[in-house]
Amino acid sequence: MELAEDEARTRFLTVPVVRLATADDLGQPHIVVTTFVVTNDVIFTAVDSKPKQSRNLKRLRNVKINPRVSVLADRYEDDWTQLWWARADGTATVIEDEDGMAEPIRLLGEKYWQYRRNRPDGPVIAVTVERWTGWTYSR
Amino acid sequence: MELAEDEARTRFLTVPVVRLATADDLGQPHIVVTTFVVTNDVIFTAVDSKPKQSRNLKRLRNVKINPRVSVLADRYEDDWTQLWWARADGTATVIEDEDGMAEPIRLLGEKYWQYRRNRPDGPVIAVTVERWTGWTYSR
Repeated sequence: MELAEDEARTRFLTVPVVRLATADDLGQPHIVVTTFVVTNDVIFTAVDSKPKQSRNLKRLRNVKINPRVSVLADRYEDDWTQLWWARADGTATVIEDEDGMAEPIRLLGEKYWQYRRNRPDGPVIAVTVERWTGWTYSR
Repeated sequence: MELAEDEARTRFLTVPVVRLATADDLGQPHIVVTTFVVTNDVIFTAVDSKPKQSRNLKRLRNVKINPRVSVLADRYEDDWTQLWWARADGTATVIEDEDGMAEPIRLLGEKYWQYRRNRPDGPVIAVTVERWTGWTYSR
């Protein structure tokens, strides 16, 4: 059954990682798994500190060309009566300046202890959510 | 580090569900979680038997307009040295005739006991994979 908007949003917050779909100007979708935080209906994700190329990732190029994105949280269990998913559709921007990245990266560090010893370098993707939807097998 | 194509394909097969990204003709991405089987570099997923609307899902409409898709398998662990993902990019078609759906639905029933008492009605989406890619924190 469908989840109300509030319930979809609440469940979305409970998962450790979400999957982010972007698309390029030719309509080629691209999908990645990512950590995230949510504040005021904005989802933030950051590029981890990885060797080179971090600033030229496909997800970043896509968002700059086409800001439409879709982000999915879900739970899988072998008992399918426990399944649910929650999705956020919205518009993304890339934040690359240190001032703009500071607060999202601080929030990511609060949520994930793993970031405390290895702070993400960014860039940050900020998704302004326009619609929360979701589904659950059973309540 | 990057996974070789064979290794990405092998890991892809080990997860219970994958996330499928499609996009419509305006470049709006859409993402769903789904069960799947792989045979000969074709990924099959089926729409479960659900009340009405099953044949008019956004993923089906998208594939008919724009066959480009991206499918992601990944593993999350709090120990980030155990993380990996594997992605399949390719071209999808919708199979709606009973003859075409029979074999994929049989394979899904073999893989998932949950389908044995509740066979998916379809349609089936068949993704011809053009590229397997992947990444792992450590080998």
